[in-house]
Amino acid sequence: MNSIFVPTFKKGSSSLSFRLLHNFRTMGTITAKAIVYPGYGEPEDVLETHSYEIPSPEALKNDEVLVKTLACPLNPSDINQIQGVYPSRPPISQTSLPGLTKPVAVCGNEGVFRVLGTGPGVTSLKPGDWCIPSKVNYGTWRSHAISAEAEFLRIPNDIPLKQAATMAVNTSSAYLMLTQFEKLQKGDWFIQNGGNSQVGRCAIQIAKSLGINSISIVRDRPELQKLIDELTALGATHVITEKQNTSKEFGKTIKGWTAGRPIKLGLNCVGGPNVAGMSRKLGKNAKLVTYGGMSMKPVMLPTSLFIFKNLTAVGFWITEMTKKDPELREKVINKVLELIKENALADINCTLNKVEPEKLTDLEFTDAFKQALCDSKSNGKQLITFE
Amino acid sequence: MNSIFVPTFKKGSSSLSFRLLHNFRTMGTITAKAIVYPGYGEPEDVLETHSYEIPSPEALKNDEVLVKTLACPLNPSDINQIQGVYPSRPPISQTSLPGLTKPVAVCGNEGVFRVLGTGPGVTSLKPGDWCIPSKVNYGTWRSHAISAEAEFLRIPNDIPLKQAATMAVNTSSAYLMLTQFEKLQKGDWFIQNGGNSQVGRCAIQIAKSLGINSISIVRDRPELQKLIDELTALGATHVITEKQNTSKEFGKTIKGWTAGRPIKLGLNCVGGPNVAGMSRKLGKNAKLVTYGGMSMKPVMLPTSLFIFKNLTAVGFWITEMTKKDPELREKVINKVLELIKENALADINCTLNKVEPEKLTDLEFTDAFKQALCDSKSNGKQLITFE
Repeated sequence: MNSIFVPTFKKGSSSLSFRLLHNFRTMGTITAKAIVYPGYGEPEDVLETHSYEIPSPEALKNDEVLVKTLACPLNPSDINQIQGVYPSRPPISQTSLPGLTKPVAVCGNEGVFRVLGTGPGVTSLKPGDWCIPSKVNYGTWRSHAISAEAEFLRIPNDIPLKQAATMAVNTSSAYLMLTQFEKLQKGDWFIQNGGNSQVGRCAIQIAKSLGINSISIVRDRPELQKLIDELTALGATHVITEKQNTSKEFGKTIKGWTAGRPIKLGLNCVGGPNVAGMSRKLGKNAKLVTYGGMSMKPVMLPTSLFIFKNLTAVGFWITEMTKKDPELREKVINKVLELIKENALADINCTLNKVEPEKLTDLEFTDAFKQALCDSKSNGKQLITFE
Repeated sequence: MNSIFVPTFKKGSSSLSFRLLHNFRTMGTITAKAIVYPGYGEPEDVLETHSYEIPSPEALKNDEVLVKTLACPLNPSDINQIQGVYPSRPPISQTSLPGLTKPVAVCGNEGVFRVLGTGPGVTSLKPGDWCIPSKVNYGTWRSHAISAEAEFLRIPNDIPLKQAATMAVNTSSAYLMLTQFEKLQKGDWFIQNGGNSQVGRCAIQIAKSLGINSISIVRDRPELQKLIDELTALGATHVITEKQNTSKEFGKTIKGWTAGRPIKLGLNCVGGPNVAGMSRKLGKNAKLVTYGGMSMKPVMLPTSLFIFKNLTAVGFWITEMTKKDPELREKVINKVLELIKENALADINCTLNKVEPEKLTDLEFTDAFKQALCDSKSNGKQLITFE
C-alpha cells in the first residue's frame, strides 16, 4: 500500500531508472495516475505524474462514483491553464489525492469516463455508463477518478469515443455560438473564419442540420480544393480563401450567393485583417462573436460598420457561459447528443494516442502526454485514450 | 418677382460681375438664400447659392411656419453628405424651392431658427420663438425657410446661441451615449478618447452633472497642462495622454483612482491602438461605444477582452437612433435644455462667422461658407450666424 513512488520530476532525466518501478493493481485497490503540476510553467517543465491508490468499487461511500477515463483531448486552453495564463483555472491546491507531498492541480478539462462502480446512494449512474464532467476544471488527464455523483453528467455509451470526448468544448461551443447570439432561421446565413478548425467544422455541420447556410473562410494552401471538398462534404454551403475574404470585388460574388439576404452572424477565431474583411460581409444589425485569436492580432473592425451598420461585437467563452447557466450546459450537451444520434456530426478529425497506464512508469506516463502535446502543435488535435 | 438670378457657379470665377446684382427684399416677399449642391463632390467644387423669394408672414398658409436662421454649425458629417459618402443624406431632388432650374440638396443638418410668422393653424410656435429642425437632413445652411409646423421643435429663446445651434448633434450625442448603453450610477466611471473634441467636452460636463466620473484621453501637445486645466475646469475627473493610455504601468494609477471600481463604459471616436489601450482599462462586462474614427484606423480591440472580460463593442449614430425613436430625440433635447438652464454646460468652443445674406451676392454668400469650411479644418468648429 505504500509502494507508490511519487517521482520528483527532473527535466531531461532518463526514464530508465523509473522503468524498474512497477505501478500495480493490488487486490481491492486501483492504482490511479494523474497528470499534475505543482506550479505554473511550460508543460515540459512542470508536468508530472502522481500515482495513488483508490478503493475498489465495493468500498465506495454513499454518493461516490468511481470512473475510468476512456479518452481526454489536449486542448490549447489546457496548456494555457498549465502556463498560468488562462483566466479560469483550477487552483494549485489539490490536496485530496492520497499520497501527495505538495499541493498540485490536475490537468485537463474535457474527457469521457466509464463508470466502474457507484456508492449505495447514487441514482443517476451505474457501472458501464459513460459520463463527462459536469463542470469545468475537473482535471481529466488521469486514468481514474472518484468524485461525487453531481460531478458527472451521464451520456449514452454507444456513441463514437471521439465525439464523446470532445463534445463538451468544441461541439458545444459551435452549437452555442450558432444559437445564443442571433435567432437564425432556416435559410439564414452566417460567416466564419477558421473554417477548418474543430469548432469551424462543427459549426458547418450543426448549421447544416439547422438549415442555416454557411460561408467558411480558410487559409490558402497547396491542396486547397481537397479541403474545400472535405468541408463541402461536411455540409459547408461555401468555402472561401482569406484572399477572397479581403477582396472587395469578391464581395459581389457573396451577395449573389445570399441573394441579398443579410448575413446575420460572424464567428471569429482569427482576428487581424481577416476579421475586418469578414465583418464587411455582415448585414445591418449583425453580431460578430469572437472566440479565439489564432493570428495573435487584435480584433480589427472598420469604424463605419459600428456607426452605420450597427454592428455589435461580443465575445464567447464557454467556461463563463456554462458557469453562469449550468442548465444551459446540460441542454446543449443533450442537443449535441441528438445531433450525434442523427449522424449529423462526422467523425472528429483528431489523432488517438493509446496509453496503458498500468504498464507505464510515472515518467513514461508523463512522457506520453508530453509527446502528444508536442504532436498537437504540428499534427492537429490529439486525444489520449486509455483503452 | 423674376429678378432672382441663379448663377451657374464656376470654380475660381471672379465675383465682381455678381456684385452688380442685388438681391433685395421687396414689399411682401423675402429673399431667401440657401447653400445647395446639384451633385456630390468636394464642397469647393459643388456648393452654390440658390436665392429665391418666399412670401411674407402674412401670406403663410395653414400649418406653415416661416423662420429666419440665427446660426448653423458646419459639421464634418455635413461635408461627408456633400461628398456623397455619408450613409444618411438628403436626396438631390429638392425641387420645391422656387426658381430652381435643376434638382439640388440643401446643405446642413443642425441650426437654430427664429420664427418670423406662422400660418393660422399653427399652435406650437409663435413669432419670436426659437426652434430647431425636428428631423435630420433638414438643410440648415440657409437664411430663411418655410416648412410645416411638424418640421420644427420649439426651444427657449433665452439660451446661448452657440448652445442652441449645436445641441441637436454634439450635446445630444454625448448625453445619449452616457445614458443609453449603460445604466451608470453616481460615482461610476467612464473613459473616453478625443477628450478635447466637442462631444468629449460635452460628455465631461454632462457626466459631472450626473455625478459620473470621467477619464478623458487627449493627444500630447506643447501646452498640455493648459488643456488639462481647461478640461478640469469643465468638470473632468482625470485627463490623461495617449502615451499614458497605452502604458501598462499607468494602468495601476488608474486603478488607484477608481479604487477598484470597474470602468463600465468607453466612448471611442479615435480607433487604432488608442482604443485598444482604452478598452484595456474597462472592467468586466463593459460597453465600448464607437461614434467616430479620427485616426482613420480601424477599431482595434484585444481578443482576450471579448472572451475573458465579456466586452461588448457597439456603434452610436445619432441619426439612426433618433430616426428610430423620434420621442427620444425630443426627450434628449429637453434634458440638454435642462442642463443649459442649470448652467451645467460651458460656452461651446467655436468660432462665429457673421454673414449678412441681404448684403451679399450669391457668390459672396457661397464664398462665406467655403471660407468657414476651410477654417474648420485648422481652427476648430465654425458656426455661421445671420445676425
